[in-house]
Amino acid sequence: MTYDKLFADALKPLHDEQRYRVFIEIERIAGRCPLATWQSPTGPRTVVLWCSNDYLGMSRHSDVIRAMTETAARTGIGAGGTRNIAGTNSPLVTLERELADLHGKASALVFTSGYVSNQTGISTIARLIPDCLILSDELNHNSMIEGVRQSGVEKKVWRHNDTAALERLLAAEPCRPKLILFESLYSMDGDVAPINRICDLAGRYGAMTYCDEVHAVGMYGARGAGVAARDGAMHRIDVIEGTLAKAFGCLGGYITGSRNLIDAVRSHAAGFIFTTALPPPLCAAATAAIRHLKTSDEERRLQQRHAARLKQVLVAAGLPILPTSTHIVPLMVGDPRLCKQASDLLLSDYGIYIQPINYPTVAKGTERLRITPTPYHDDALIGQLRDALVDVWQRLRLPLANSLVAAE
Amino acid sequence: MTYDKLFADALKPLHDEQRYRVFIEIERIAGRCPLATWQSPTGPRTVVLWCSNDYLGMSRHSDVIRAMTETAARTGIGAGGTRNIAGTNSPLVTLERELADLHGKASALVFTSGYVSNQTGISTIARLIPDCLILSDELNHNSMIEGVRQSGVEKKVWRHNDTAALERLLAAEPCRPKLILFESLYSMDGDVAPINRICDLAGRYGAMTYCDEVHAVGMYGARGAGVAARDGAMHRIDVIEGTLAKAFGCLGGYITGSRNLIDAVRSHAAGFIFTTALPPPLCAAATAAIRHLKTSDEERRLQQRHAARLKQVLVAAGLPILPTSTHIVPLMVGDPRLCKQASDLLLSDYGIYIQPINYPTVAKGTERLRITPTPYHDDALIGQLRDALVDVWQRLRLPLANSLVAAE
Repeated sequence: MTYDKLFADALKPLHDEQRYRVFIEIERIAGRCPLATWQSPTGPRTVVLWCSNDYLGMSRHSDVIRAMTETAARTGIGAGGTRNIAGTNSPLVTLERELADLHGKASALVFTSGYVSNQTGISTIARLIPDCLILSDELNHNSMIEGVRQSGVEKKVWRHNDTAALERLLAAEPCRPKLILFESLYSMDGDVAPINRICDLAGRYGAMTYCDEVHAVGMYGARGAGVAARDGAMHRIDVIEGTLAKAFGCLGGYITGSRNLIDAVRSHAAGFIFTTALPPPLCAAATAAIRHLKTSDEERRLQQRHAARLKQVLVAAGLPILPTSTHIVPLMVGDPRLCKQASDLLLSDYGIYIQPINYPTVAKGTERLRITPTPYHDDALIGQLRDALVDVWQRLRLPLANSLVAAE
Repeated sequence: MTYDKLFADALKPLHDEQRYRVFIEIERIAGRCPLATWQSPTGPRTVVLWCSNDYLGMSRHSDVIRAMTETAARTGIGAGGTRNIAGTNSPLVTLERELADLHGKASALVFTSGYVSNQTGISTIARLIPDCLILSDELNHNSMIEGVRQSGVEKKVWRHNDTAALERLLAAEPCRPKLILFESLYSMDGDVAPINRICDLAGRYGAMTYCDEVHAVGMYGARGAGVAARDGAMHRIDVIEGTLAKAFGCLGGYITGSRNLIDAVRSHAAGFIFTTALPPPLCAAATAAIRHLKTSDEERRLQQRHAARLKQVLVAAGLPILPTSTHIVPLMVGDPRLCKQASDLLLSDYGIYIQPINYPTVAKGTERLRITPTPYHDDALIGQLRDALVDVWQRLRLPLANSLVAAE
């Protein structure tokens, strides 16, 4: 069959470049966070999960599971329709009110995923602005890039987090409507955008701002509204986009903004209109997680404590971590084959699961292990991880922090 | 704020053309299917739901809810990562095996929605075929159209279900790789594609076939695999796409096909790679629904019985339904304002919820009430619906079937 050969051929470059992906099958153990059962080649094994984006362990919080279970018993699982045709369920309406309140905006709109919220949100907003120019941070997520591409609108890319570069682009088009796209917290390097400076520039040059907070909601700010809230800039941003699938432990994504903007996206976005609404039990679970994190600071405090402790321990061991001010701890390898080997050894010989991050998720030459401590990764687990990493670094003769610095 | 005015302006044409959408907020009552609680302007009211795509009521089946609840307790809710980074959970792997078996294919791939499975599935497949020409049925769903658009590949549209028109397009490009896109069952008219004839032509002219079965899976064929299975054509189709959000009562979408094709999409589709995996409890629930419908024929039998009965009763009352051989019963109105008024009257005065279907979901002038009987819509409910419709048709002076025929 000739078509099948085309698909087989499409896999060859991935094998050749050592970036063919083999998915690791696990099942997390809700009562023993952060443990999971790995379906290893020789059968099920218990491992420690160190790379999940269920950042605060909310996916297994008793309030969250109870909300899902009770709602499923009361109303069933699937929404059974698009938002317009029988799918607008009360738990979803409640969730949108909760999200609007979280970010201090008039309205919120829920999508089936964070990816879709960026893709269809950005493409719809940009198309509704005549002669729009998009200014996009160079490290923005694939979902934002796809949103820009789908809009068909002209885009200029500014150097990552470089507000001088952004200002040059803004100043070059003083009269044109402009939409600035950026993330508050970049997930692979763990660094943070200069949000207030971006808002200053947006005000000066008459641009709209769209900020992706998916790796920050739940984890920063007094009520878990994100980095913009922590930095006192939330009210200055026109559109805040977030996810229910990371710190809130569920599934789905959203945008928040003014009543007219949300109504216009609701009314014009094909990727919103023509798809089944989020199931009521998931909406209720997400609402429970958001409400808990609006008042409880304990998860955020423990996560930050463990992240700080982990960085301190790995630096002391000479391991080459990228310095960050956030909960994300990137451990640099710089080679796809070695990165995969280090991950494989950690899993097979030490029962530690950290997925290797290779191209295209990060640039070639910056391959890494991306470590995400949660409130449940205590000092004993941190010590165990350090010992395993030091062993693996020696076995694979990977460079330590000092030698990396010397090589630069 | 000038940007906000643009978004307000984008809503005006919708109001002017009487197609501004007001979402009806409901909560279905799991133990009293097909009843739901409507948040009416004067407070909560119990209504009968006649327009849900939870076609078989599986969203509230005890096996399905139990699978969700037990899995949530065991492993938590959210998957906590993309498929590549900690998100490949055992219930999801099991679900993909179940779907491959359902459609008799080597492999299956689950997406966050049916919309995304078409959008990213079609765009990825088409881009992996050099010099591909897409031949698309003119009534294909928006998600398929978006997939074609994103692929950037040349497309030709053939007249709906017209295999002579399809053959002319195929014959015009004998040497070029071709991808035929169609649905097995079109949701708004309730008609069915000539699947075997399309497969004959694909074989004769060397084209690949991609069939969307979202309005058929669970409901047709001995094991609920869809219309292609019922017509003995399932093995002839290269890619079968389906949903978990309609007859299977949950959320998510999928494609099934050869091992190489699925592996290539898995490895290249941005809309698959960069998004959080489906939650384990939803995967387990979907698997339970699929397994139930593989062996139980009762739901399909009752749905078909009620659909046949409803059509008979509405025809006898002179109401202008579009004749169909499927479970979908379109009641034609032909005017957006009257269609909305009929729906509003049914809801406010008779406690019956049927969403008006207006442009852009259907062509202007073909506005309709789309009625979807389930196994739970018994003869008493059917009689009640007929009486309400006859009243509303008289009150609004809507045309009856005979007068429609006479007018043509």
